[in-house]
Amino acid sequence: MKAINLKEKHSTFTKKWHPHQIARVDDMQVILAKIQGEFVWHSHENEDELFQVLRGTLYMQFRDRTEVVKEGEIIVVPKGVEHCPSTKDDEIVHLLLFEKLTAAHTGNVKHPMTQTEYPKI
Amino acid sequence: MKAINLKEKHSTFTKKWHPHQIARVDDMQVILAKIQGEFVWHSHENEDELFQVLRGTLYMQFRDRTEVVKEGEIIVVPKGVEHCPSTKDDEIVHLLLFEKLTAAHTGNVKHPMTQTEYPKI
Repeated sequence: MKAINLKEKHSTFTKKWHPHQIARVDDMQVILAKIQGEFVWHSHENEDELFQVLRGTLYMQFRDRTEVVKEGEIIVVPKGVEHCPSTKDDEIVHLLLFEKLTAAHTGNVKHPMTQTEYPKI
Repeated sequence: MKAINLKEKHSTFTKKWHPHQIARVDDMQVILAKIQGEFVWHSHENEDELFQVLRGTLYMQFRDRTEVVKEGEIIVVPKGVEHCPSTKDDEIVHLLLFEKLTAAHTGNVKHPMTQTEYPKI
């Protein structure tokens, strides 16, 4: 039951597309990630996924459009919806994510970037 | 699947200790609240509760100590732990909360401030 400073936690890692778990809330986890460039298209069969932008601008691509999510904004991607998080102009974007403990960050897709366990920081 | 601006949403209400639901993630809800002064001591039997401070400083009182939670910080209060959120010097503090849909904001306590349904904004 300690305050967790999001900027401090973000400063402890540099690797992109590499989620780090900072807290749990019931069967959900709070994750920090740095992203740059384009991820992989994927969906989560059983989990909604919340993204909060802490720094920069997230371009959340859906199959029919792209939603721009700025610093101080959140977006929820419902289960089953294909999406591909991305950034522009080489910007490093800082995210907080909120999702079930069972959610894998590449969802239904196996990819070289897929990470099966998230380090706790 | 639209971006939700937290400051804009916060600007749509003024009532203190009055949670507003802005999103759902599986069986959890994302809530915004403005707080000022002292709430009521309570605990949640079955729900953990995450607080994120968007503006100001939250003084989270526990029975044995007070944890200071500043802007850009989060704290998770586990189920069963008595707590009393508060602010100092009449500051109006802006919070984002993340908790199960079943969580009542006054937990195990019935109080004149108790609100059984959270408006959706």
